Amino acid sequence: MKVVRDAAAMRALSEERRLRGDRIGFVPTMGALHEGHLSLVRLARSGATCVVVSIFVNPTQFGPGEDFELYPRDVERDCDLLDEVGCDLVFAPTVEGMYPEGHRTEVSVTGLSDRLCGRFRPGHFNGVATVVLKLFNVVRPDFAVFGQKDVQQLIVIRRMVEDLDLGVEIVAGPTIRETDGLAASSRNLYLSGTERRQATCLHRALRQAETLFRSGERRAGVLVDEMRRIIEAEPSAKPEYVSIVDPSSLEDLDMISRDALAVLAVRVGRTRLIDNVRLMVEG
Amino acid sequence: MKVVRDAAAMRALSEERRLRGDRIGFVPTMGALHEGHLSLVRLARSGATCVVVSIFVNPTQFGPGEDFELYPRDVERDCDLLDEVGCDLVFAPTVEGMYPEGHRTEVSVTGLSDRLCGRFRPGHFNGVATVVLKLFNVVRPDFAVFGQKDVQQLIVIRRMVEDLDLGVEIVAGPTIRETDGLAASSRNLYLSGTERRQATCLHRALRQAETLFRSGERRAGVLVDEMRRIIEAEPSAKPEYVSIVDPSSLEDLDMISRDALAVLAVRVGRTRLIDNVRLMVEG
Repeated sequence: MKVVRDAAAMRALSEERRLRGDRIGFVPTMGALHEGHLSLVRLARSGATCVVVSIFVNPTQFGPGEDFELYPRDVERDCDLLDEVGCDLVFAPTVEGMYPEGHRTEVSVTGLSDRLCGRFRPGHFNGVATVVLKLFNVVRPDFAVFGQKDVQQLIVIRRMVEDLDLGVEIVAGPTIRETDGLAASSRNLYLSGTERRQATCLHRALRQAETLFRSGERRAGVLVDEMRRIIEAEPSAKPEYVSIVDPSSLEDLDMISRDALAVLAVRVGRTRLIDNVRLMVEG
Repeated sequence: MKVVRDAAAMRALSEERRLRGDRIGFVPTMGALHEGHLSLVRLARSGATCVVVSIFVNPTQFGPGEDFELYPRDVERDCDLLDEVGCDLVFAPTVEGMYPEGHRTEVSVTGLSDRLCGRFRPGHFNGVATVVLKLFNVVRPDFAVFGQKDVQQLIVIRRMVEDLDLGVEIVAGPTIRETDGLAASSRNLYLSGTERRQATCLHRALRQAETLFRSGERRAGVLVDEMRRIIEAEPSAKPEYVSIVDPSSLEDLDMISRDALAVLAVRVGRTRLIDNVRLMVEG
């Protein structure tokens, strides 16, 4: 496995592999890798002859007062893990390499970017879309894998890829959970013991919504109230949003008449966690 | 010469040429081709083994009340001219093909987009940047040629290409002029006989600025006043802006101590014309 810091070198390596006939699978990450990331790399591995993973804590997707400085970083450990799961190339650029003096271009996926997490993290999805576009332009993958856990990110990226004619296939990897249901996230490291136990409320709320939905409940308001009740029972948990939305427009639904997403963001102590589950209408 | 309407077909043809080892030169246009465009195609021809020209009157770069509907269109004539100058592939997509229902991604080159023409045409350069990015992603050229006449567009595109790591070389083609100095433009077709004669004031103003500059004048205000005087002497000419700016930031200069641009936009009757000249500091 090779680790590359320079965009021009990365572009050249990737181009060389492509001309050799390789099918390039790409997994963009911010490092601090956990089982969720590794499952995405394995998914890439299964469909690619060359797997590229990027590690870059992207400053432009963090707002003022967010955890950019604090965000866990351990590139050496990340590379050991990536080597084990069969990654071929790691692209780990510097902030100066990605955003040299004078950088001023931004991509926005209007509408989608402002909803849900976007309401609480203004500018976040412009930062995500812009950096993913830049990474795609350097790596030029045939396909890229994103986790279903960050579902709004997945939807924003899919839209961008289609709108900008990027010709990159976007593959979604299922959410990986701890044994008690908590979705794997680099931010779980921030939780204290008590918070860690209470953090299972996200998954419990979503499971309850799913159970109600399967038993025939179609009123979004009823599901949302139930989810809020479960979350608010935990003293350290404060919901930011709890919604049932359309999976392509992310607009709030009143009644669930076709496939929908139950989505939520919760602050557990000072840590912001997100999770979601798909509600599939049969037939 | 082949004419392609479908993005997927264009992408496939271009990919085929690239894999054959061709060097692809690209000239994006809105059609209504004149000598200015043809000179850009010849420039592309001189450096490419495959020349692609796009013809697309892009609605998103026209504001409300602008001339989108009126803009001259004659694809058949355009194709005859392109065939003569050695174009290989013409990409002429439909509006629905470029912007299908649900399209919502936009690129902005913040700062650069709001100045000069951007002040009078809000959203124009976002529309330009977005469509050029889309066209680049379909055609995947090695280099692309833009006219120096639309200098702000050229600067915005260069910035975008660098910021988004597109790896496309941007080549500037010199402004082509009528014998009386008027810069070639598709919009010259709108001018009445009287307006056409008065429209030479743009070039005369720029030439006068150049003369003063060569004789040692370095105060931008003096050059601007002179240019305004020449333009305002024509009854049908109303300046929108007349400025001396830095060629990379497009910020107004007070004193010219390094290379600068004299730029102007003038309404002649109801027709909006632009032009510019580079002021080069020797040394």
